[in-house]
Amino acid sequence: MARLKLGMVGGGQGAFIGGVHRIASRMDDHYELVAGCLASNPETAHASAKELGIDAERSYDDFLSMAEKESSRDDGIDVVAIVTPNHLHYPIAESFLSKGIHVICDKPLTHNLEDAENFHKVVSSSNALFALTHNYTGYPMVRQAREMFRNGEIGELRIIQVEYAQDWLTLPIEKDGQKQASWRTDPSKAGMGGSIGDIGSHAYNLADFITGAKLEELCADISSFVPGRKNDDNAHVLLRYANNAKGMLWSSQVAPGNENALRIRVYGEKGGLSWEQENPNYLTVDIFGKAKKIIRRAGNESSDIGNRVTRIPPGHPEGYLEGFANIYADFAKQIRAFQNSQKPDEELLLVPTIDDGLKGVKFITSVVESGSNGGKWIKF
Amino acid sequence: MARLKLGMVGGGQGAFIGGVHRIASRMDDHYELVAGCLASNPETAHASAKELGIDAERSYDDFLSMAEKESSRDDGIDVVAIVTPNHLHYPIAESFLSKGIHVICDKPLTHNLEDAENFHKVVSSSNALFALTHNYTGYPMVRQAREMFRNGEIGELRIIQVEYAQDWLTLPIEKDGQKQASWRTDPSKAGMGGSIGDIGSHAYNLADFITGAKLEELCADISSFVPGRKNDDNAHVLLRYANNAKGMLWSSQVAPGNENALRIRVYGEKGGLSWEQENPNYLTVDIFGKAKKIIRRAGNESSDIGNRVTRIPPGHPEGYLEGFANIYADFAKQIRAFQNSQKPDEELLLVPTIDDGLKGVKFITSVVESGSNGGKWIKF
Amino acid sequence: MARLKLGMVGGGQGAFIGGVHRIASRMDDHYELVAGCLASNPETAHASAKELGIDAERSYDDFLSMAEKESSRDDGIDVVAIVTPNHLHYPIAESFLSKGIHVICDKPLTHNLEDAENFHKVVSSSNALFALTHNYTGYPMVRQAREMFRNGEIGELRIIQVEYAQDWLTLPIEKDGQKQASWRTDPSKAGMGGSIGDIGSHAYNLADFITGAKLEELCADISSFVPGRKNDDNAHVLLRYANNAKGMLWSSQVAPGNENALRIRVYGEKGGLSWEQENPNYLTVDIFGKAKKIIRRAGNESSDIGNRVTRIPPGHPEGYLEGFANIYADFAKQIRAFQNSQKPDEELLLVPTIDDGLKGVKFITSVVESGSNGGKWIKF
Amino acid sequence: MARLKLGMVGGGQGAFIGGVHRIASRMDDHYELVAGCLASNPETAHASAKELGIDAERSYDDFLSMAEKESSRDDGIDVVAIVTPNHLHYPIAESFLSKGIHVICDKPLTHNLEDAENFHKVVSSSNALFALTHNYTGYPMVRQAREMFRNGEIGELRIIQVEYAQDWLTLPIEKDGQKQASWRTDPSKAGMGGSIGDIGSHAYNLADFITGAKLEELCADISSFVPGRKNDDNAHVLLRYANNAKGMLWSSQVAPGNENALRIRVYGEKGGLSWEQENPNYLTVDIFGKAKKIIRRAGNESSDIGNRVTRIPPGHPEGYLEGFANIYADFAKQIRAFQNSQKPDEELLLVPTIDDGLKGVKFITSVVESGSNGGKWIKF
Repeated sequence: MARLKLGMVGGGQGAFIGGVHRIASRMDDHYELVAGCLASNPETAHASAKELGIDAERSYDDFLSMAEKESSRDDGIDVVAIVTPNHLHYPIAESFLSKGIHVICDKPLTHNLEDAENFHKVVSSSNALFALTHNYTGYPMVRQAREMFRNGEIGELRIIQVEYAQDWLTLPIEKDGQKQASWRTDPSKAGMGGSIGDIGSHAYNLADFITGAKLEELCADISSFVPGRKNDDNAHVLLRYANNAKGMLWSSQVAPGNENALRIRVYGEKGGLSWEQENPNYLTVDIFGKAKKIIRRAGNESSDIGNRVTRIPPGHPEGYLEGFANIYADFAKQIRAFQNSQKPDEELLLVPTIDDGLKGVKFITSVVESGSNGGKWIKF
Repeated sequence: MARLKLGMVGGGQGAFIGGVHRIASRMDDHYELVAGCLASNPETAHASAKELGIDAERSYDDFLSMAEKESSRDDGIDVVAIVTPNHLHYPIAESFLSKGIHVICDKPLTHNLEDAENFHKVVSSSNALFALTHNYTGYPMVRQAREMFRNGEIGELRIIQVEYAQDWLTLPIEKDGQKQASWRTDPSKAGMGGSIGDIGSHAYNLADFITGAKLEELCADISSFVPGRKNDDNAHVLLRYANNAKGMLWSSQVAPGNENALRIRVYGEKGGLSWEQENPNYLTVDIFGKAKKIIRRAGNESSDIGNRVTRIPPGHPEGYLEGFANIYADFAKQIRAFQNSQKPDEELLLVPTIDDGLKGVKFITSVVESGSNGGKWIKF
Repeated sequence: MARLKLGMVGGGQGAFIGGVHRIASRMDDHYELVAGCLASNPETAHASAKELGIDAERSYDDFLSMAEKESSRDDGIDVVAIVTPNHLHYPIAESFLSKGIHVICDKPLTHNLEDAENFHKVVSSSNALFALTHNYTGYPMVRQAREMFRNGEIGELRIIQVEYAQDWLTLPIEKDGQKQASWRTDPSKAGMGGSIGDIGSHAYNLADFITGAKLEELCADISSFVPGRKNDDNAHVLLRYANNAKGMLWSSQVAPGNENALRIRVYGEKGGLSWEQENPNYLTVDIFGKAKKIIRRAGNESSDIGNRVTRIPPGHPEGYLEGFANIYADFAKQIRAFQNSQKPDEELLLVPTIDDGLKGVKFITSVVESGSNGGKWIKF
Repeated sequence: MARLKLGMVGGGQGAFIGGVHRIASRMDDHYELVAGCLASNPETAHASAKELGIDAERSYDDFLSMAEKESSRDDGIDVVAIVTPNHLHYPIAESFLSKGIHVICDKPLTHNLEDAENFHKVVSSSNALFALTHNYTGYPMVRQAREMFRNGEIGELRIIQVEYAQDWLTLPIEKDGQKQASWRTDPSKAGMGGSIGDIGSHAYNLADFITGAKLEELCADISSFVPGRKNDDNAHVLLRYANNAKGMLWSSQVAPGNENALRIRVYGEKGGLSWEQENPNYLTVDIFGKAKKIIRRAGNESSDIGNRVTRIPPGHPEGYLEGFANIYADFAKQIRAFQNSQKPDEELLLVPTIDDGLKGVKFITSVVESGSNGGKWIKF
């Protein structure tokens, strides 16, 4: 089957997440990268394009011309990946969607709620598909957790404990010109959320993905431990879900020893589920009154929903890139169905959507609002 | 050296914690149990006493006569262990302290703040010693964590993540007459705190023991998930400490798969410390920029403060009873110093005190107050 | 119930294992230490006795007088614990058994096979009971592993992987006069086995305890890595059991990072069991085709056989001393049954016996014989 | 940079390892698959080729015509991946090498020693490059272990404990026509080695890669636990290395609960290193006298040698495919250097070679010889 033609905005030399998107897109051979506007600086953009084997004529100086020109080519791109700082997601996506080019976009959706709401409208009314790379939802054992929860295996929801801790902002490295640190700690580019925007939004999304529980209220205490930092580098959030379920969310980028420690535990009346991103091939299942069970990716008692998105036998660990690639692969299948005027298979719709993106920005906004007001309770 | 003569109030047949206290008291051979008022029901009390080898004449029907008679015997008890439901701690302790008999008492101190404050006055003005069995402070690696923190090895405090989760109250077993569940879920005996009183207070105490950080404000969301239960069986608490440090505390007795999962993580500007009660022989140390280190009880890089309270070489695991016994052993040494009119060694003063008890009850009270008022912030 | 009167030979100041035996004997209140011959040097012996609260007149200079005098006292000891270097176990045990005093003895039984065979005869023909402290058999989850294996839960035995690694002899500390290292590396006191005698024998015993498989042949490669050391400090052994089952045993005292790493894995046609001494509260169960299960001491799916020998609820970790104490407690119950001319309960007979001791010495002897002959196969 | 043109022999529909090679080759964008002889059955071959987007004219019926035709095309393949059953590796490789086409070949090299020796000669005298996919050597933390060992960080080698356990052959699934099980248990296709050939050879290679220790003698006990199985499904091997170092190797495919449990521990005079394939992002380092250290991929104290072959930040787990891809990526760089008549960088030469392949077959042969002769010692 011919590969989908992929373009990319952002992700030039020195950017971390662009490379991740490219590997993820290649993993299952659904995409070929053929065009890009890889950096705001044209020189960097073109040098990056060359390195990646993109034809010089398809390396663009600005995303508007890219959208314009690619949409007018016979062999123009089918889909564009947006991997820029947050404040640019919306205008870029808009320009491609308006040309009927599908969009796969990094999270969080936007750097403010207004943009997010407009973005949502644009996607809803466009004639192209949209996916958001909340990549952690692509892990097979996360999919299985979702299924088990929704099948009632642990009963009605009582408690969600979710956390996402890192340590890379322990010191004020943004002052030393570290590129990623610089924009991620700059409210004008990242939005008002610091740790809560960058990673807390993943934690919220993961809880939402697994349980589907409706968040009703929250109360947040946010801190900027590093002197001079404008956005939070640590957030503590109490969550109240529908039906009296409760939750707790911690995001931090100043917790030494935590590399990328996203962890979720969900408890219901009958049992609990636990999963950790750093050891993603395991799902721990505790049914009340039963011994602890560890279900392994593709292994015994693993279910079809996860096995569909795994490539290798149990015991051969898959990691972050494979989970990320699942988002790309499923979105490719959505696009092909769309191109063939077919309805995509149900399971492909697990790819995070514009709705997830909007909820995520609302979450970030609410946390910052609560935190900036002394930790008052906010309706969600 | 002659053993201290020990009496016990509570802890008769069917009680869990009484047996723990007895083993803990025997472990290092500092005590001999010679008297008791082991149950409110005299028949149970005497049967229990017989089983434990206590002379019939020193098995008492009520604690008042026990205090009276033991204090007038030449071979009367030196010290009494109080292991009753919470509401009885204060009156019992008072009657023994007033006779100059030392008291080692289960936690939480009392079932309400008024009693706790009076209790504090009684102890402060008495001529006898008092210890509270916040036993988790007895673990060697908790002692080492305290020392490392206070030596500044992880720098100034930023974040405390502490949690204590169990699952034994997942179902409404108090309705089936399970004895311990019955009193622990009964506000008139346990106090207003459910999980927060029984185990959340341990979590608070552990954070306090290690860091000494001054709690200034808290905000709590408490739940009674099991229908009909009066006290909380789950509590989520945000903590604000002095110097802008922040914390999060979770206590739950309805989290399936958690047996006795007390866990603390403390982060400072320079590093982090992590310890889990269920695998208490390990302390994880993360100095920012360095590889993760696991220090093992009595092993390499373990320090004197922990090694003093360990009995066996590394790799020979010690557990809950050994940690509990450390409280008993150090209290015995305090008592002997007192009996010899000596000042106890500094390190013996790590045994939890009446101050810890009062702080604990204030903590429980504050959490319940916050939680009962929609989760408002409370000054501590 | 009155405590059994306990004497001890060996275990004076500076000895590690004597203190372990004393705590283990006290843990469940079945014994009271009243007499001893605690060191070969009388001064040390008496000083140790004083420290332990033993009456001066019952602190003996030599074990023969101790056996003589204690057996003639009305309040003489019921049982003696022998915790000396290996070459003394047999003569000491003989002198007490011949007086009708029960014996609980450290392992390995003797330092050579001849003594072991004679020892076996003496015990068999004596009118007193004998127990060997292969303490690891006292762990609840080891008991459960045995039961599960023998109930056929993992099917017919195929493979045993057992290992016991330490690192305390990595350097030639015996040359620095470290007391325990000195005798344990001295063939005249420890026997011909170095690591294989001290700890390999535990590993062999553990496999035997759980499976009861009949060892038929072995092939060993033994090393003394530390220059000048006479006995092995590392042994690699291939095992052939009846019915074509196979095994592998590794013992080492020069494996840095291993504190007391006894670990066993047993595989049958239908499943596998895995247990590690350093985290003894867990038993991992893998039934072929099923998810991995972790059964926790006293927890869900734990069985009566283990729960009988546990004192505290799940999640409150028990350790080495508690496992050791189970041997003491069950032996006390055997003695009481004997004193009452009753048959002991079946489950009490899990305490290791003189048969186990003899098998252990045969195992050590065979390993050394194989290893000293270039690694030839030896019939067992 | 233009991608290398890749062909593949074997790896058609239903084969596991072919897909792995394809993903690995794509991961870092060094290769493009353009030709294949994907199955012995032409129909399957062509259907597979179509699925993979290979032009019909470059989907071959037999490998000889493929070598012939591809070598005569201007746009012919640069390199061929051989992923057939073991007995075909040699003839296929020979036909491509003789045409100057580079070869990357699955392991073990061949199904018998004679072929392996001839293979070695062919590669040595050919004018093309050869790589063997002992993929576990591609893991960053394995590379770091090698470097630390060779830098003397744990001192002179004493002990190697290596094991590779699986459970997928616990039942006689080869009788049910499971394709992979069928050829892997068939001596005419897999060679005489069963588990020792399939996975034991990886274990041997891993030890060799890390330590470079010279194996001098071995003694093996091999079993076929499943009735009717001709090759071993379990092997226990004692190893004697140069300078009196010792080792133990276990390979098994009938150990329930083990998915792909390759694990190595190496001990020297000064420390130990431990790594497990199922959690490959961690390397445990124990320096004698120091606390246990866990070095994480790309994290603190990780070294350049591993960091060069990692793609994403610490805490974002990499897995099996990424390790495999490192072999492909480094081989691509070797090929480019060769094409430019340059000497490859030193570090690229870590890719396993024909020497490793020959040593591996000698190892398998020796194990089977020892095992078939009652477990006698064999010079290596």
